[in-house]
Amino acid sequence: MRTLIRNGTVINAGGTLRADVLVEGEKISAITAPGVIETADAYIEADDKYVLPGGIDAHTHMEMPFGGTFSADTFFTGTRAAAWGGTTTIIDFAVQAKGTSLLSTLDKWHEKADGHCAVDYGFHMIVSDVNDQSLKEMESCIDAGVNSFKMFMAYPGVFYATDGEILRAMQKAAGTGATVMMHAENGIAIDELVAQAIAEGRTDPVEHGLTRPPELEGEATSRAIQLARVTGAPLYIVHLSASQALAAVAAARNDGQNVFAETCPQYLYLSIEDLAKPDFEGSKYVASPPLRPKEHQADLWRGLRTNDLSVVSTDHCPFCFKDQKELGRGDFSKIPNGIPGVEHRMDLLHQGVVAGEITLQRWVEVTSATPARMFGLYPRKGVIAPGADADIVVYDPAVRQTLGVATHHMAVDYSAYEGMSITGGVSTVLSRGSVVISDGEFHGHEGHGRFLSRELSQYLV
Amino acid sequence: MRTLIRNGTVINAGGTLRADVLVEGEKISAITAPGVIETADAYIEADDKYVLPGGIDAHTHMEMPFGGTFSADTFFTGTRAAAWGGTTTIIDFAVQAKGTSLLSTLDKWHEKADGHCAVDYGFHMIVSDVNDQSLKEMESCIDAGVNSFKMFMAYPGVFYATDGEILRAMQKAAGTGATVMMHAENGIAIDELVAQAIAEGRTDPVEHGLTRPPELEGEATSRAIQLARVTGAPLYIVHLSASQALAAVAAARNDGQNVFAETCPQYLYLSIEDLAKPDFEGSKYVASPPLRPKEHQADLWRGLRTNDLSVVSTDHCPFCFKDQKELGRGDFSKIPNGIPGVEHRMDLLHQGVVAGEITLQRWVEVTSATPARMFGLYPRKGVIAPGADADIVVYDPAVRQTLGVATHHMAVDYSAYEGMSITGGVSTVLSRGSVVISDGEFHGHEGHGRFLSRELSQYLV
Amino acid sequence: MRTLIRNGTVINAGGTLRADVLVEGEKISAITAPGVIETADAYIEADDKYVLPGGIDAHTHMEMPFGGTFSADTFFTGTRAAAWGGTTTIIDFAVQAKGTSLLSTLDKWHEKADGHCAVDYGFHMIVSDVNDQSLKEMESCIDAGVNSFKMFMAYPGVFYATDGEILRAMQKAAGTGATVMMHAENGIAIDELVAQAIAEGRTDPVEHGLTRPPELEGEATSRAIQLARVTGAPLYIVHLSASQALAAVAAARNDGQNVFAETCPQYLYLSIEDLAKPDFEGSKYVASPPLRPKEHQADLWRGLRTNDLSVVSTDHCPFCFKDQKELGRGDFSKIPNGIPGVEHRMDLLHQGVVAGEITLQRWVEVTSATPARMFGLYPRKGVIAPGADADIVVYDPAVRQTLGVATHHMAVDYSAYEGMSITGGVSTVLSRGSVVISDGEFHGHEGHGRFLSRELSQYLV
Amino acid sequence: MRTLIRNGTVINAGGTLRADVLVEGEKISAITAPGVIETADAYIEADDKYVLPGGIDAHTHMEMPFGGTFSADTFFTGTRAAAWGGTTTIIDFAVQAKGTSLLSTLDKWHEKADGHCAVDYGFHMIVSDVNDQSLKEMESCIDAGVNSFKMFMAYPGVFYATDGEILRAMQKAAGTGATVMMHAENGIAIDELVAQAIAEGRTDPVEHGLTRPPELEGEATSRAIQLARVTGAPLYIVHLSASQALAAVAAARNDGQNVFAETCPQYLYLSIEDLAKPDFEGSKYVASPPLRPKEHQADLWRGLRTNDLSVVSTDHCPFCFKDQKELGRGDFSKIPNGIPGVEHRMDLLHQGVVAGEITLQRWVEVTSATPARMFGLYPRKGVIAPGADADIVVYDPAVRQTLGVATHHMAVDYSAYEGMSITGGVSTVLSRGSVVISDGEFHGHEGHGRFLSRELSQYLV
Repeated sequence: MRTLIRNGTVINAGGTLRADVLVEGEKISAITAPGVIETADAYIEADDKYVLPGGIDAHTHMEMPFGGTFSADTFFTGTRAAAWGGTTTIIDFAVQAKGTSLLSTLDKWHEKADGHCAVDYGFHMIVSDVNDQSLKEMESCIDAGVNSFKMFMAYPGVFYATDGEILRAMQKAAGTGATVMMHAENGIAIDELVAQAIAEGRTDPVEHGLTRPPELEGEATSRAIQLARVTGAPLYIVHLSASQALAAVAAARNDGQNVFAETCPQYLYLSIEDLAKPDFEGSKYVASPPLRPKEHQADLWRGLRTNDLSVVSTDHCPFCFKDQKELGRGDFSKIPNGIPGVEHRMDLLHQGVVAGEITLQRWVEVTSATPARMFGLYPRKGVIAPGADADIVVYDPAVRQTLGVATHHMAVDYSAYEGMSITGGVSTVLSRGSVVISDGEFHGHEGHGRFLSRELSQYLV
Repeated sequence: MRTLIRNGTVINAGGTLRADVLVEGEKISAITAPGVIETADAYIEADDKYVLPGGIDAHTHMEMPFGGTFSADTFFTGTRAAAWGGTTTIIDFAVQAKGTSLLSTLDKWHEKADGHCAVDYGFHMIVSDVNDQSLKEMESCIDAGVNSFKMFMAYPGVFYATDGEILRAMQKAAGTGATVMMHAENGIAIDELVAQAIAEGRTDPVEHGLTRPPELEGEATSRAIQLARVTGAPLYIVHLSASQALAAVAAARNDGQNVFAETCPQYLYLSIEDLAKPDFEGSKYVASPPLRPKEHQADLWRGLRTNDLSVVSTDHCPFCFKDQKELGRGDFSKIPNGIPGVEHRMDLLHQGVVAGEITLQRWVEVTSATPARMFGLYPRKGVIAPGADADIVVYDPAVRQTLGVATHHMAVDYSAYEGMSITGGVSTVLSRGSVVISDGEFHGHEGHGRFLSRELSQYLV
Repeated sequence: MRTLIRNGTVINAGGTLRADVLVEGEKISAITAPGVIETADAYIEADDKYVLPGGIDAHTHMEMPFGGTFSADTFFTGTRAAAWGGTTTIIDFAVQAKGTSLLSTLDKWHEKADGHCAVDYGFHMIVSDVNDQSLKEMESCIDAGVNSFKMFMAYPGVFYATDGEILRAMQKAAGTGATVMMHAENGIAIDELVAQAIAEGRTDPVEHGLTRPPELEGEATSRAIQLARVTGAPLYIVHLSASQALAAVAAARNDGQNVFAETCPQYLYLSIEDLAKPDFEGSKYVASPPLRPKEHQADLWRGLRTNDLSVVSTDHCPFCFKDQKELGRGDFSKIPNGIPGVEHRMDLLHQGVVAGEITLQRWVEVTSATPARMFGLYPRKGVIAPGADADIVVYDPAVRQTLGVATHHMAVDYSAYEGMSITGGVSTVLSRGSVVISDGEFHGHEGHGRFLSRELSQYLV
Repeated sequence: MRTLIRNGTVINAGGTLRADVLVEGEKISAITAPGVIETADAYIEADDKYVLPGGIDAHTHMEMPFGGTFSADTFFTGTRAAAWGGTTTIIDFAVQAKGTSLLSTLDKWHEKADGHCAVDYGFHMIVSDVNDQSLKEMESCIDAGVNSFKMFMAYPGVFYATDGEILRAMQKAAGTGATVMMHAENGIAIDELVAQAIAEGRTDPVEHGLTRPPELEGEATSRAIQLARVTGAPLYIVHLSASQALAAVAAARNDGQNVFAETCPQYLYLSIEDLAKPDFEGSKYVASPPLRPKEHQADLWRGLRTNDLSVVSTDHCPFCFKDQKELGRGDFSKIPNGIPGVEHRMDLLHQGVVAGEITLQRWVEVTSATPARMFGLYPRKGVIAPGADADIVVYDPAVRQTLGVATHHMAVDYSAYEGMSITGGVSTVLSRGSVVISDGEFHGHEGHGRFLSRELSQYLV
């Protein structure tokens, strides 16, 4: 099966060109000047459209267990929603429970995901329990294609790792080339502030933001950077939200340290004002780190331009307002943390292009090419190039759409972007050569997506 | 009793002048142009000598309990040694044991010190156990003249406080004007490195330095600063030793935050090379933070000039080589931490004057005037001025001496500065109007020294 | 003649104490606890009042020639106004005209000032013409008590010195211990912007501010600092107004370089909004650097606290609105540059104390003690101490006054602070032992003030 | 004519892949998985070799007039040497003489180069004479494909532009999207230091380095950045050599300003020690800015990794030792400035890959892709992609060679890299589809190279 995508504007991180793209089977086999290859089995006409490498969302949480409930998207509904939005790869998190092994955790997550995903997927591993065995198992995980290990400086008693545990895991990472991903908030101090707020009767969702001040994200980010410096480990800061944290990352990067960071669309477009919405509406915007005052947004956009922020992921973690978010009525600390977004990342970042914040190439770079390189998928993913998987988005930059729960495809009962007007939208999506979205319909199927055994990060120097 | 100190060069932090100083009883009653006051009961001729406010050592540990033993100087021998070296006030640390109250701790320390000191003394309080009661007791301590509370980010299981506990104590400090003093090293990470070294058979004293890298002092310093920023607490970093920590302090001070730091003579004159001396000699130099590579020294001197380092204290904590330091043969982590020095601070810093590192005024400022202001003793102490206590040092800038165990007066069997040649030395010392050192003899007595109930820091803005 | 100032609160930079001050002849001869000296020829009761060292205004321009006219205060009226405001020393600028010698310039200024000043005075030298002779003459100036040499990076064709000329003068300064004072604005770039504004018909006073952007003050400040670094010269930035310049000074000071800066009351209290006042009112506020947007003010106050700004001078340079400022109607570039202020500096900075921006001690430090040290007058001036000149201000912190042209004593027809309400005011002023202001009357006389031959700066390390 | 480059490792800035590259006529027409296209007119076997976009040297000076002589390479010999080294595009500088017009200058340079180059070429314009006419002519230059304008803060009396002139040119650049390229050294101060050295008899080549201290490059770089900030102009710092300058660039880039910088191989591999070689050998290394102490090199490599240095150009400006460099015997200031290097850039930077300083992709990025984007040639140049010019280097990473005058092809009688051993070397070079180098022979011809009318920089945000 040979499919020719004709006359599109091919946008790679490395540049833009008018070209035809030939897909053979699951792979791209050629990029040519228009017309060089004349015949194929099928044709997709891409005049006036962009032809992008499929988006890679390096931070999602499907079916994530959380206090007796689960995040609302299954691996199927979540990856289908991703496909609708032009994202053809997700990297989800396997979550080690305390007292269990990393390998059994990985098995469990394979069980949950294998055979159910609509697009390709990989795993990071959340390390909750640092001990001799789990450190040893990190090596087996790397062999099994999972070489990025997330740790938490927040959530004491749940995921929290001490600085000593972080140090040990980082030593292992330094020795193996694995990447440590860090949730960088000083959870020990934050939990004290949270307890004080609850004790004083300050229980509204906005308190979630007020008890997690940006200085404590900046602090934890600096701390993680110093621990990485001492050990030599590569460090990737997840969901960076605060100017203070960005400054710490920028300083380390100027020093040439292997420190990287992602931000998320919610930190670029939403703010603590959303968290302060009345009638418990604010709960829809509860995630950690919290939404920040608006003045942080300009710094984050600048960070995306200066490459101090290298990746935009979603931290997609959907909980329904009804029954789930509502668990925290009267106590903001019980609101499940998470904002749905896997479907909207490509569109939301395209708004950054429209607004002049980033270039077209940078849009593709932060949403696809860099996550591919950062997480060892490149050049299989993240680029329109011969030999790459034919994960391709044909994107119409001119179409207009309005985001909202009525039209989105995520399995959640609200939208954090309800009513937001967007310029641009997905036209056709191919996953490994198969059309999964076209003409406003999903043509894929559960189980099409394959597990991606990943190489080490290509950014390490 | 009226004593007239004639014709000296009076050196205050604020400036130098030729003047006579009249002492009446325990107080200075007048500073006059030479000859204005003609008669007195006694005369001290200070031609060609400096007349300084007595030194204030804001960081000593006399009779400090440590793992079944005690630091070697009693309050008497330690304060007598201080007097020999021109220091007429010490501020020692009362050490809360876990599970005990701050007030009973204070009582215990009064018991140890009251009636035994050769010069005046005050207390800081080490808070080892943060809980509702001890936080409440902080207020009583302040009323009792003890308004500086030391906490540890090092020594897990002993003095270590979590960031949440630090936060709570800082909130209390912010509300009362008290100062939080911080031992800023990331003890959690360090203990991991120490355990690894021991497990790998790296047990020599130099490993003490290698397992406590300067980045982890810089990290903890930054963290303490951020916690202080979040709470609004004044912060005083004790025994700063590393360039990285200095940079963090300098940045906070440029921002106008109430952050202060002291360094110690050992960090200005000794280095990790001393710690690496063979035959367990290195154990004599074991203190925390550890002695650093020599290149940190120039930064510390610069910090003293730029006032990013405001105070020089000794962290005097003497343990004899025999029987005490020797506890750590074969396991550096068991070496009692501490270097003796209360006697030599004024002389060692005078070498900085001789070497052109600091001015005469700055010498007096960092060793006397600033600690007086920082710890609420000014203008009772720290200045030659009418109304001040007559704690006066007549200092001969021309005399030469050699430091060493044979001549020092501290109750410890070695000198960290053995054989070091010094220009300058104490000639006469008055404590509250009484001559305690003159003509190479100690004329004071046990119990002369009085407890100093201190006011709040005068540096807070 | 012995005068005893009784029961006041003596405020030195170094601290505050209740004390009596004995004046004998022109000098302070003793500071004593209250009551130690019982009799004198005269008494000044200072209960509830402050007793300060007289203010030192290190930056004034009396009778300064400017484009055919002169600044409106003579050395007599200007120094009398200074005395009214508690300033007992000024350091004015001798202005070398191109093609003339430094020594003849100094002679000329002595001619203008000698025998006319109401309080003591010294000179800085403005070097307009750098050549072998003037560089050589710098040494003679130093011998003559003038060791601070002002240069301009602004005003091409008038005072402007090239970077090469600055380098040469700095080399001479480095070799002699003299200080280079710098007007740091990039005048070459600014003049281009000014010419463009005029050419485009933008001629209002506010354009004076808009054509001198703060970046160009920051730039010139950085440049002066680098030239000083290359040559080793001490550098003193005059009239610093912009956050950008402050950041450059702070960075250099953190590095331990001999870099100092003054700001002026107008930059602390006035802003570009004043410059934008209609009906040519804005011309009253034209000075260079220009008044800045208000957000710079908080940074300047912080700089005063952190000592990155060491001195507050006035840059007093009065031009009457009528006939003088009016020269620039229709062309802002022709408005004589300068704002009157020598009378109000002590009061305006006292407002900073009232508002909690600075402490009482810091008030005295930035207005008197530091300029005395910086410009080689200490401890003759700048301190209440035995042996010092009896330049003393008895200041009533409780009195209230309103500033304005109706009540001020400067020879200028407007006030930049018209209607501003002030807490505190001068009660009695002594200049070298003589009462010059008391009971709301001037008791001094023209010619009382003596020329001050100055020593080198005491801040050099 | 269809040429197929088979089985090579294609290295673009954006990534590496195994692919075949089809060339049709002067263009690349397809990139395919190996074997997709089976037949062509000619084949180049690239097994075990890299296939790179041809190098772009954005900073050369062929036949540059200099004090009565000319740089030693003609446009033919220089571009031929470039081709030998894998560089298929140069951007040379048209040099406005004072008093002449930009357009006549451009005509003159076309006359010199057109019909003579072996590979493609473009021009930057050196603006020596800023006036209304030349500012106006900048627009015509942009229309003529020359949109980068170099100015000098060094060389007073020759190329030097005042800050006012720079400001005016930057305003024009800001309005048109043109880039200002800056030689950032404070030439006014430097010339003073040079004159002093000569006057004092310090005349050896090493004085060239000592009289141009790195602080004065840092200063000028900062100044250029501030002028660019005031005007909004894009700024490109040429031949950055000093850590101080790099720090200024990094800070501006962190702020998101359009500031870019190049360094040159000589600053990465040579040092002031070369300049200090005896017997006037040092003259071979005289260029401006001068070679720096070795410690700057590590910072420059780090800058290449962090992208604070975006481009590596050569500043190729060859003067023969005999008769040319020798003009400066006895007076270093008369030594023609320049180091030959156009031939060696790709090889020297490949050593950075071998040494682990940069990745393969970064090698291609800094030597080809980024200069293409920066100077408006992308995607015509700088990338292996369909539609791009077939400027292709087949590079053998395993071959070994030794640099030196005996083997190089530049028309100069010495090598700055004499005897240096290199891993890697050019195998085959295509320029617009024609093989110009293969089998160790030059197959091109004078006049093959075409003038490149360039678009605006693609990096502007």
